[in-house]
Amino acid sequence: MNNFSYCNPVRIIFGKGSIAQLRRQVPAGARVLLTYGSGSIKRNGVYEQVMQGLEEHTVSEFGGIEANPRYETLMQAVEIARREKIDFLLSTGGGSVLDGTKFIAAAVPFAGADPWEILSRRAPVAAALPLGCVLTLPATGSEMNSNAVVSREATREKRAFSSPLLYPLFSILDPETTMSLPPRQTANGVVDAFVHVCEQYMTWPAAAPLQDRQAEAILQTLIEVGPQLLSQPQEYDSRATLMWAATQALNGLIGCGVPQDWATHTIGHEITAAWGLDHAQTLAVVLPALLRHQEPHKRAKLLQYGERIWGITGGSEVERTEAAIAATESYFRSLGVKTRLAEYGIAAAGLEAIGQRIEARDGKIGEHRTLGAQEITAILKACAA
Amino acid sequence: MNNFSYCNPVRIIFGKGSIAQLRRQVPAGARVLLTYGSGSIKRNGVYEQVMQGLEEHTVSEFGGIEANPRYETLMQAVEIARREKIDFLLSTGGGSVLDGTKFIAAAVPFAGADPWEILSRRAPVAAALPLGCVLTLPATGSEMNSNAVVSREATREKRAFSSPLLYPLFSILDPETTMSLPPRQTANGVVDAFVHVCEQYMTWPAAAPLQDRQAEAILQTLIEVGPQLLSQPQEYDSRATLMWAATQALNGLIGCGVPQDWATHTIGHEITAAWGLDHAQTLAVVLPALLRHQEPHKRAKLLQYGERIWGITGGSEVERTEAAIAATESYFRSLGVKTRLAEYGIAAAGLEAIGQRIEARDGKIGEHRTLGAQEITAILKACAA
Repeated sequence: MNNFSYCNPVRIIFGKGSIAQLRRQVPAGARVLLTYGSGSIKRNGVYEQVMQGLEEHTVSEFGGIEANPRYETLMQAVEIARREKIDFLLSTGGGSVLDGTKFIAAAVPFAGADPWEILSRRAPVAAALPLGCVLTLPATGSEMNSNAVVSREATREKRAFSSPLLYPLFSILDPETTMSLPPRQTANGVVDAFVHVCEQYMTWPAAAPLQDRQAEAILQTLIEVGPQLLSQPQEYDSRATLMWAATQALNGLIGCGVPQDWATHTIGHEITAAWGLDHAQTLAVVLPALLRHQEPHKRAKLLQYGERIWGITGGSEVERTEAAIAATESYFRSLGVKTRLAEYGIAAAGLEAIGQRIEARDGKIGEHRTLGAQEITAILKACAA
Repeated sequence: MNNFSYCNPVRIIFGKGSIAQLRRQVPAGARVLLTYGSGSIKRNGVYEQVMQGLEEHTVSEFGGIEANPRYETLMQAVEIARREKIDFLLSTGGGSVLDGTKFIAAAVPFAGADPWEILSRRAPVAAALPLGCVLTLPATGSEMNSNAVVSREATREKRAFSSPLLYPLFSILDPETTMSLPPRQTANGVVDAFVHVCEQYMTWPAAAPLQDRQAEAILQTLIEVGPQLLSQPQEYDSRATLMWAATQALNGLIGCGVPQDWATHTIGHEITAAWGLDHAQTLAVVLPALLRHQEPHKRAKLLQYGERIWGITGGSEVERTEAAIAATESYFRSLGVKTRLAEYGIAAAGLEAIGQRIEARDGKIGEHRTLGAQEITAILKACAA
């Protein structure tokens, strides 16, 4: 096991009716900016519950944060927050709204010329507005971590950043708010959480048997609950299970003391930036191709995964790892999520630019730092087929 | 899944050489009281490492905190801390030292007549000294929770208390400090962690499949690592695995949203108070008898446990649950931990007082609140046989 340091101070308030606890969680006297997305919270009753919880507070609103939240949009909120002397941000929505809100939190007190520097040149986050979250879409895990991903329309970039100052003070997770999600968003959430686990698990054996089993616990849970969610979308228990599993998939716990990969995410972000695919759609496309490309490096973990998760015990090692990857791909497809770029109308030609762009910016990626422009192009071509 | 609220702010610093990080973790300028137990830290090099980490701080010492830390002893430390205007406590040792230190932390600023009221009549902990921990014995999970258990010699009581103010600010877990533990303490740690999981898992199915699998992950890990620890006590990876597993067993995570039992602990505490058995020894004695007594109420979870953990799938339901309980008892015995009171020379006669004492104080216990004096006596008689 590698040495590690772990501290996750987020208060999770989970369950039916939990939005009512907002009143006690938002600091008394705070001037609150309520951030949200396309306005679904105004159609599904969440907005009313939130405003009831905030009736003792001064509240401004900023709606319209997109999926893959954009710097250009968020900077409008930064201006409002500065002008109205906002001192608490309340994100109400999914991971995109929350990621965007984390950017606003860091940008408002940013002392440099342009808060984009936090992403472009990793300018340190020296201060941030405190923030809370009412989550309505289980997927990203942003509700219990200090990470965020923001896109810039002008340059077609999608970049991640992180700071311990960006942990939500609290995150309210009421599974009832997720009952009305369309199947596409539900399935995306399952895939996103699944791939978050894979990024922290599918590397090499690192003498961390508990972390392995904790990761497998989430994978097995997602595999069980995915089909239930699609066949019985109104079933509270399944909604609750996905919501908690997605949180656990990226709160840092299963990543303690083990190597991590994250190449699937890095490549996926570029696909979203270039062609606008949903984040989870890109992950479902990239992961199987990446696992096949990296099979020799990931063999031991793929064998363990195949046996423990899919019951694959027969055949040669390479047959078993291929069976495990194929089972993963089939699972994504069973949720209605495609696994090839061609299915989205994206051709193999012109993919080279992505690998070159990643290597120029990040160097080689993956747990062994072996994926450069050439390897990424090979993976993308396999994704395309 | 039941509604829940979860927040665990402890910073875990894990791994080889991590005591060196003390310097940055203890607040600058703090007047530190270093608490420890029988003095093993002065024989195994831990004391020197801690004092090096504290060389920029003003440090007082209080040694001699016992296993099952005693109110009478701890009140001496309270006096010293008050007199020397201590403002930070650093526990160095196992769960007993840390539990005792939590009591000191709450007792120093206690405004009532006698800090024992925190345990005897659940007087609220309105303030507490901040504390940190260097853990040298994996078992209790106290390093990542806000609970403590303290005994009073004069009245032969052993009582638990808890407050969010008693989370350690940080806990340093260096598995190398546990290499020199004797087999008895190592085995006790495995059993303690195992039973902590059981108390949160072996109740009834509560539509919490992820928590179930997270609990099973810890159980499976402990079952694998237990024999390795006894056969190769100097193996770092096994020591690290136990240390992290014991922390995860009682940091609140697997208990989120599920029913809990804790009757084995309540009964076990009385056995320790009456006859001085090690805490884990009492758990290994009580758990099998309690599971047999409660089999009808716990059947569904026992079946799941038997199948997933021990691969028990054949026979009637009652045969399978008995096989699962027998496997658990055999596992404890394989670690060298006895499972019957008679093996400790404790006779069946005179056990009634324990059940009466528990019911008079706590009412009926267990996840269904069905275990009163009569039922506890029946369980204890089965333990004795």
